[in-house]
Formats: sequence, structure tokens, C-alpha cells
Amino acid sequence: MVWNPKNNEIPDFTDIEQSFTRIQRYIHRTPILTSTQLNNIVEADIFFKCENFQKVGAFKARGALSAITSLPKRDLQRGVATHSSGNHAQALAYGASLFNISATIIMPRNSPQPKVDAVRNYGAKIIFCEPTQESREKMLKEFVDRSNAVFIHPYDNCYVIAGQGTCAKEFLESFESPNYLDYLIAPIGGGGLMSGTLIAAKHLCPKTKVIGAEPKGANDAYRSIRDNTIYPSINPRTIADGLLTSLSQRTFKIIKDNISEILTVEEESIIQAMRLIWERMKIVVEPSAAVPLGAILENPAMFKGTKIGIIITGGNLDLNKLPWQ
Amino acid sequence: MVWNPKNNEIPDFTDIEQSFTRIQRYIHRTPILTSTQLNNIVEADIFFKCENFQKVGAFKARGALSAITSLPKRDLQRGVATHSSGNHAQALAYGASLFNISATIIMPRNSPQPKVDAVRNYGAKIIFCEPTQESREKMLKEFVDRSNAVFIHPYDNCYVIAGQGTCAKEFLESFESPNYLDYLIAPIGGGGLMSGTLIAAKHLCPKTKVIGAEPKGANDAYRSIRDNTIYPSINPRTIADGLLTSLSQRTFKIIKDNISEILTVEEESIIQAMRLIWERMKIVVEPSAAVPLGAILENPAMFKGTKIGIIITGGNLDLNKLPWQ
Repeated sequence: MVWNPKNNEIPDFTDIEQSFTRIQRYIHRTPILTSTQLNNIVEADIFFKCENFQKVGAFKARGALSAITSLPKRDLQRGVATHSSGNHAQALAYGASLFNISATIIMPRNSPQPKVDAVRNYGAKIIFCEPTQESREKMLKEFVDRSNAVFIHPYDNCYVIAGQGTCAKEFLESFESPNYLDYLIAPIGGGGLMSGTLIAAKHLCPKTKVIGAEPKGANDAYRSIRDNTIYPSINPRTIADGLLTSLSQRTFKIIKDNISEILTVEEESIIQAMRLIWERMKIVVEPSAAVPLGAILENPAMFKGTKIGIIITGGNLDLNKLPWQ
Repeated sequence: MVWNPKNNEIPDFTDIEQSFTRIQRYIHRTPILTSTQLNNIVEADIFFKCENFQKVGAFKARGALSAITSLPKRDLQRGVATHSSGNHAQALAYGASLFNISATIIMPRNSPQPKVDAVRNYGAKIIFCEPTQESREKMLKEFVDRSNAVFIHPYDNCYVIAGQGTCAKEFLESFESPNYLDYLIAPIGGGGLMSGTLIAAKHLCPKTKVIGAEPKGANDAYRSIRDNTIYPSINPRTIADGLLTSLSQRTFKIIKDNISEILTVEEESIIQAMRLIWERMKIVVEPSAAVPLGAILENPAMFKGTKIGIIITGGNLDLNKLPWQ
């Protein structure tokens, strides 16, 4: 049995605070950047919380470390495992390396070589599976049963959600007054970051509207909240490769109960936003991180004259394949 | 006649301090970034002073503003002019826009459209010339004679050099002790940044070795210092398009009298260094800015175990044409 007393719980702000205390020494306090040029373009004041500068290049370091540091010593020694081909895999591998425990990642056989290399570089073991959800889960279960490793889900985990919430906590506490921001926007994939963000914002700035940004080609969260039922993400089509996953029961409930709105964004707006961020701000961000700015570009009237916080989720991508080329 | 009492002078540290006082409110104090991953690769501690985050995306904002703010009001109103197709053009245009004066830029007819647009966006007038040094200088002289505008040379100007020196001043003063760095490395083009850097370092950290980094395909400064004579930069071949210009008498003298060493760097090392910075640090830097890291990659034994400061000169480039593609 996996030790995890809060496995089925919904975290609250105290969980985020405790998570922050545990992980603080292992993560970066990432900078908040602004750009006069971008502000002029959108006629609003945007503050970017830059998790592309986070350890492993993405906010996922927070959630993975939060989960690892929640484990008592005897469970820690069993090692950790997950299925992921993305930033959570690197984050878990990084976290495990800090505590000198084993990390095993189930990855689809067709994962891009740079992602496989990145996970290996952090010292994790990789087990390849077929590129289907079924195969991933089956291989993971087999491995966990065999090895007794602790499964750390990429987002459907109380400690992971609380860890992701530390990003909004740092971000929101940096402004001179509560409710300084009119809007706080983050992308939605499986809903882990959005859940943590909503819990932090509800406590710290109840008047700030929290908005989810989702690619039109992967709009399962938008439809799920609209129809009050979880739609799985089937054949999503978007360059925002961090946002392909479906909501879980838990993230669905947190989002449904707290979110102000979900805006869906065309691919060309995501690409335009990503390019604007690279050109004007001189930072490397992955496509998923550009979806919030894409939402602002598509809804100028809604955001004109407002103060907006955006979580830049990460900066990991294949530099040989830029979407504007 | 152009007012400029120090036109033929070599600046000292007091000039850098005065320049800093004048321009401080118009420029960013750019961050100093480090990367554990990069440090592991080169087995040294590197500190990157990130002028890609400077106004107009390059350190050139410092020099241009230093020159503009040195002008008494009656000269300021005559407007400013220069010949440049690069970051100095944008910097002068930006500086002029802050003081509501005219800026006129002589640009080669074949300048890339993004550069022309960038200068226009800051409200400068452009006069196109033939793509030769002769035509540039002739057109500029004609314009200055006709308009009475003040010519601000990209680097052969006491105030410009003092302005560029404010970057090293900020950088060096941020360390806990003088001479904290074993090495300080900046690229050499016309020598304006390097001159200002040498003057600042001589005053603030006389034990730190200041090293120039230059592309092998544009090694005129290396040869000039070696042979104690100024070689013009003829048909330079490098992707580091900010480093194509020749030293002036003044920058030659400052560099000759103060520099520790000039290292020349192969094109492939520049590209490798640029890609490493993008991938590991998640920042957008132009090829010229990667030449110092290229020099470190080519000379591992020299730098192993040392503390190194690098000036990241800028982040302006055409995102459609990355050198590794």
C-alpha cells in the first residue's frame, strides 16, 4: 500500500504553506518580469511569473518535490515512479536525485530523444511502453506492484497540487496589496497547476479573477466545466504539448468550484504569443506557457486597462522545431 | 561644430560614474544569472550579466543615453544622427524618443526588414545608403552638414564608452568583494564595450583578468593588438553580426594598454555556446553574446575551477534564422 494519508483529499491553503516550507530550499524563487513593449501592445499591465527559470525548466519541480518531501523516510526509500513524457518526469527524476532515491519513469516508446535524455541525465530509470494511455497505466501498475515504489501522479495528488500552488503563493504575495491583480491566468492541462493556483488565490486575493487558458484543439476542460461532466482529452491537437491531459475528479471539482472562466485559444494566437514573448522579453518559453498571453491577444476588450498576472509554466522545447518555421 | 569637449579624450572611472548618474533612470539594472547545469559542463562558476534584458535588448542603450544626456540643451535640440544597422541605431532612436528630439539613422539599403522596423518603431528617421563604409560615412556627413544634427558614433566617443562601462560597474559592484572574479569576458567589435569594461575593471578589480572574445572570422582586434597596429575589419565572416566593425584609434589604445588577452573563437563554438545558453538558461541571446562562452568551451583547462563574469551583450536576432537550423 502506498502511504499517502491525503491521497483523496483536496488541499487547502495550509497545505500550500506547508509544502512551501518543505520545498523552499530546493527550488528557485523565480523572477516576475514585465515588458513595456508588450504592455503597449495589449494596453494592459502584465506581470509574468517565470517558471521557465525554475529547476528543470518548469513549475513541475514544485509539485514533484512537494510529493517527495511529504513521504516519511521509510516510504521515501522505496523510490518513486510515474508515467510521463514531459516536465513531470524530469521533475520527479530531479527530486529523486536530491534525496538519493530511485526514480522510474514509464515513457512512451516514441518519446522525443531530448526528453528521454533529459530524464536520464537526472539519473532516473526509464521503462518504455506503447504510446497509449492503457499501456502507460498497465506498465506503471506492474512496475509499482513489483518494486513497491511510490507512484507520484503528475497532478491527481494532494501534495502535487499543493506544491504547484506555491507558485501562485510566491507570485501573489509579491504585490504591494492583496487583490492588486484584476486577473490571474494560467494554462490548464490536467488541472494540477490550476487547482493549486485557485486555492492560493482564493485565500490571498479573493477579488482577483482566476482564468484558465486552454488551446481550442485541447479544450476538454472548457467543455467539462461548461457541461459539468468530465470529458477525457481524446486526440487533442495542439502545439501546446504540456496541455494534452484530462482533468481528474479532484482537479475537476476544484476548478469547477473556484474558476472565474476558461478561455480557449487558437493555435495561431498561441504561436503569435510565444513569438512575442521570445522577441520582446528575450526569454525561452514552451508553447504551453504562451497560451495565457494568446488568450489576452484574442480578447483585447476584456483585458484593456487591467492588471494581469500570468504564470509562464516552462521553457522546455526542441529548439530544432520552432512553430513559426 | 559639434559640442563635445571630450570628443578626443579617453574616459576614466569618474566619467563612468557620471554617466551612470545621468542614465540610471532610463535603463534597467539587468539581472546577473547563473546556471548550475552550465557550471557543471564547464567546471567553473560563471556569472552572466544579462544585457539582453536591457532597454532595446542590448547594452547599447547605455552608451547612446550616456552620449545624449551629455549634451547641453541647445545641442540636444539639434537632434542626433548615426550610421548603424544594428543595436546602436535602435539605442539612439530609443534615447532620442525619451528626450523628444529627432534621431536620424543612416542604414544600408540591404538592412534586414526587422532591423529597419525596430528603428522606425522608436520613431527615428531612416536614410538609406549603399551597403559600403564609404557610402555610410558620406551620407552621414551630408546629413549632418545639412541638418546640424549631432553625430553620435557607435563606439568612438568618450561618452559612449563611459556609458558602456556602466555595465561592468553594475556587474562588478554586485559581488561581495573586489577581485571576486578571476576573469571578466566580453566580446570585441568596435571596442566600445571592451574599453568601458577595461576602465571599470581597472578601477574596481585590478586583479581580475579582463579577456576579449572575438570570432576567428572577424579577428581584427586580435591581430591589431598582437601586431600593435590597427587592422581594419575587412570582409569579416561570422554569424556574430554585432562584431563586424574595426577598432578606432581610441578603443585600440585603451584595449592595448589594459587587456589581459584576446581569445578567438570558431563559428561552431559560438553556435554551440548560443544553443547551450538558450537551452539551459532559457534566455534569448544573439550570436555575438555567445562568443565569450564559446571561448570558455574552447579553453577548458584555462578556466577550470575559476570564477568568471560574462557580459551577455544582447538578444536581438531574427528568430526565423537560427544558426543551428
